[in-house]
Amino acid sequence: MTHIAVIGGSDAGISAALRARELDPTVDVTVVVADAYPNFSICGIPYYFTGEVSPWQSLAHRTHGDLEAAGMALRLNTFATAIDVPGKLLTVRDQDGLEQQIGYDELVVGTGALPSYAGIAGMDDLGPDDGLHVIHTMGDTFALQRQLDEQDPRSAIIIGAGYVGLEMAEAFTARGMQVTQLQRGSEVLSTLDPELAGQVRTELERHGVDVHTGTTVHRIEKTPAGITAHGTRAGQPVTHTAPLVLAVVGVRPNTALLEQAGATLGAGRAVVVDEQMRTGIPHVFAAGDGVITHHRLLGRTYLPLGTTSHKQGRVAGENALGGNARFAGSVGTQVVKVFDLVAARTGLRDHEASGAGFRPRTVQAAADDHKRYYPGAQPISIRITGDTQTGRLLGAQLIGRLGTETAKRVDTYATGLHAGLTVEQVSELDLSYTPPLGSPWDAVQVATQAWSRANALTPVGASS
Amino acid sequence: MTHIAVIGGSDAGISAALRARELDPTVDVTVVVADAYPNFSICGIPYYFTGEVSPWQSLAHRTHGDLEAAGMALRLNTFATAIDVPGKLLTVRDQDGLEQQIGYDELVVGTGALPSYAGIAGMDDLGPDDGLHVIHTMGDTFALQRQLDEQDPRSAIIIGAGYVGLEMAEAFTARGMQVTQLQRGSEVLSTLDPELAGQVRTELERHGVDVHTGTTVHRIEKTPAGITAHGTRAGQPVTHTAPLVLAVVGVRPNTALLEQAGATLGAGRAVVVDEQMRTGIPHVFAAGDGVITHHRLLGRTYLPLGTTSHKQGRVAGENALGGNARFAGSVGTQVVKVFDLVAARTGLRDHEASGAGFRPRTVQAAADDHKRYYPGAQPISIRITGDTQTGRLLGAQLIGRLGTETAKRVDTYATGLHAGLTVEQVSELDLSYTPPLGSPWDAVQVATQAWSRANALTPVGASS
Repeated sequence: MTHIAVIGGSDAGISAALRARELDPTVDVTVVVADAYPNFSICGIPYYFTGEVSPWQSLAHRTHGDLEAAGMALRLNTFATAIDVPGKLLTVRDQDGLEQQIGYDELVVGTGALPSYAGIAGMDDLGPDDGLHVIHTMGDTFALQRQLDEQDPRSAIIIGAGYVGLEMAEAFTARGMQVTQLQRGSEVLSTLDPELAGQVRTELERHGVDVHTGTTVHRIEKTPAGITAHGTRAGQPVTHTAPLVLAVVGVRPNTALLEQAGATLGAGRAVVVDEQMRTGIPHVFAAGDGVITHHRLLGRTYLPLGTTSHKQGRVAGENALGGNARFAGSVGTQVVKVFDLVAARTGLRDHEASGAGFRPRTVQAAADDHKRYYPGAQPISIRITGDTQTGRLLGAQLIGRLGTETAKRVDTYATGLHAGLTVEQVSELDLSYTPPLGSPWDAVQVATQAWSRANALTPVGASS
Repeated sequence: MTHIAVIGGSDAGISAALRARELDPTVDVTVVVADAYPNFSICGIPYYFTGEVSPWQSLAHRTHGDLEAAGMALRLNTFATAIDVPGKLLTVRDQDGLEQQIGYDELVVGTGALPSYAGIAGMDDLGPDDGLHVIHTMGDTFALQRQLDEQDPRSAIIIGAGYVGLEMAEAFTARGMQVTQLQRGSEVLSTLDPELAGQVRTELERHGVDVHTGTTVHRIEKTPAGITAHGTRAGQPVTHTAPLVLAVVGVRPNTALLEQAGATLGAGRAVVVDEQMRTGIPHVFAAGDGVITHHRLLGRTYLPLGTTSHKQGRVAGENALGGNARFAGSVGTQVVKVFDLVAARTGLRDHEASGAGFRPRTVQAAADDHKRYYPGAQPISIRITGDTQTGRLLGAQLIGRLGTETAKRVDTYATGLHAGLTVEQVSELDLSYTPPLGSPWDAVQVATQAWSRANALTPVGASS
């Protein structure tokens, strides 16, 4: 009987295991999980800290029992230490330090990513007991909750203002804490153009977050008042101190195991896989935040996202069974809620598109989420990036308030990108309309029409 | 100088006029409008009666002044009576009965549709002063408002339970009136499968609407208590009486003017046009609810919708200037809010797809709008129709509560239909996810995966 071993209990690993069992309920599937929390929604952790999710157990997409009922054997608190490729043996170590070998026919590796320290000195020397936190696992979550419970800190420094940093700024603020947010870039949420990200900054400040952009933290140290972050802003030294520091400055692929087994590293130093999630190592597939991302506009890149991990894992699980599935490719769709704002993007921004060989232009418009005469209409700000030579849609960025269906409007662009539509073709789409929820030309199309008008003013191929 | 004459002040006509002026600000554009209310949002009228829109003037997409500023000359309260094709002359009659001729170089006809009486005897003999109303123009709106103001009727009968009928049931209910809704079909909202439309009926009843399905009204008459509707239900005669009856049983294309000019009638007895909105009559274009609809799955059909009228009008306006635009085609996307429910559809239902030569199967699923651990998650019911032989997506129907982004989720399917995606490709789309607003596999994809699973159980090509 075929035995599929899966390393990793998060999105990619569990998706692979579920898919294999779905396709063949007779296959043996063992999932090796480094901690005791398989299939937890890491994306949901900020909402545990806002108090909106309780108890923490509800963050599980599926319970331990659900997963076993789906037919997989779980090896919890078990760390995979080596892959013997010719012998098709996986070496694992349990929490007592005991090593053991697991034979496999096919192996799927979903070891994910690790928090990045972004070159900040002192990060390796401090930990949760000192008030320094990262937020990447349920263990990190419990450690942070412990400090909140035991010390009730009234202030926190968040290093980083990306998705998780913004969500945690909201969470700490919801708990009544004063948040200082330190961001290296010139604006928060650097995955969006500053013209839109500035609205996010305003929303943070409106809720009392003390935002410091252009601030690079070089070093942190333990001080009597907690942790002091030393950095520079506009060339001047700055320091910030708080009893609690949360560092959310990105992730790096966790590739050690596969590297030792002979995997190749590519974009972002992630493991190279093909669209079938094959590593090139015989009988070894990989998926998730540890591998490169096939992107429909960029080719191979590194863009770790939970949605992608689910899809890649599903492909790996099917192919581990001898299937021929292909990951159709990401277009980089992302969305975040920050207090009452929703910020979303898909595809490429101007500089990313230029870097990929397109001749992009980006045009911004604003359009109401629904007919203005119906109560509650709110503008959505939309930036459309299109190729001036072919008219192809390259990307879209949106910001609107909660309730404006901004999160699912980005999906229309994402679908258009997947299908290779032009900007003009988006204007031609037959989108839904009723006055309380839309307009005859949806906001999505008001924006693409604005792009087309602007682009008509300059000859095709002219520099934008 | 080119002179474009446009007949019709609603979506198609105004869109044509605006597009022509946008492309060539020197062109002369005259718009002949039968009443005094050009560019009013007819779709918004129900929200005037709920009290959410006030004053009625705010229903105008653009004011009279806006339209003139856009460069069009408006001839209000003016009725087009004849087209002299060889002479390129339009005969119009003003409200004093004075006839006049207007020369044109190019003519765009957007005379729309007229309320259908669905063969109900007595409709021609009664009118607003008797308590019988239709709701198709601002004049109808004022007449209805007048009865509400003067008589404060406490009950109403609505004949029909389509989009407008449902919206008006909500509006009358919001005013404290007892509504009796008479529907010929076996379920309300017959544009959706009854499995979903039943949820709409429940929502109506939850709000006190007295819904009678399977009830065909044959005749109405004036009686001392108001208007009595005589009909049959399950073969038995039934009567319902109320001081106010609103008949919303569909529309029929208003084609008299173009028929006299030699136009051909096609699907639904609407005027045949090509994808460039040419009628075949020299220099005469037509668009909107009076013409056939090019549908990307059905070919030529009749499906009058405001969104389509805007797009067709825009094409007609461009081509009247000598352009070469094409209407890209409808996929039949529609959405309605009924109290706190949102019901949407796009593409084809099973029987429609069968009729068009596909081998469809329809599978229903339910999925939460966002992660269940985050407060406020609500299920969306989704029915996916796909072709069993090619896997092509053919249609989707959705029902969810307000706030579930159901209206814009249907747009993902609509975009997929436009692009000719398969059901499986929808499952592969890179859709947005954050726990408060979605799931790693969006509800849209939970439904397409359910379809794929169900279809995998039966060999391709087998009867469904």
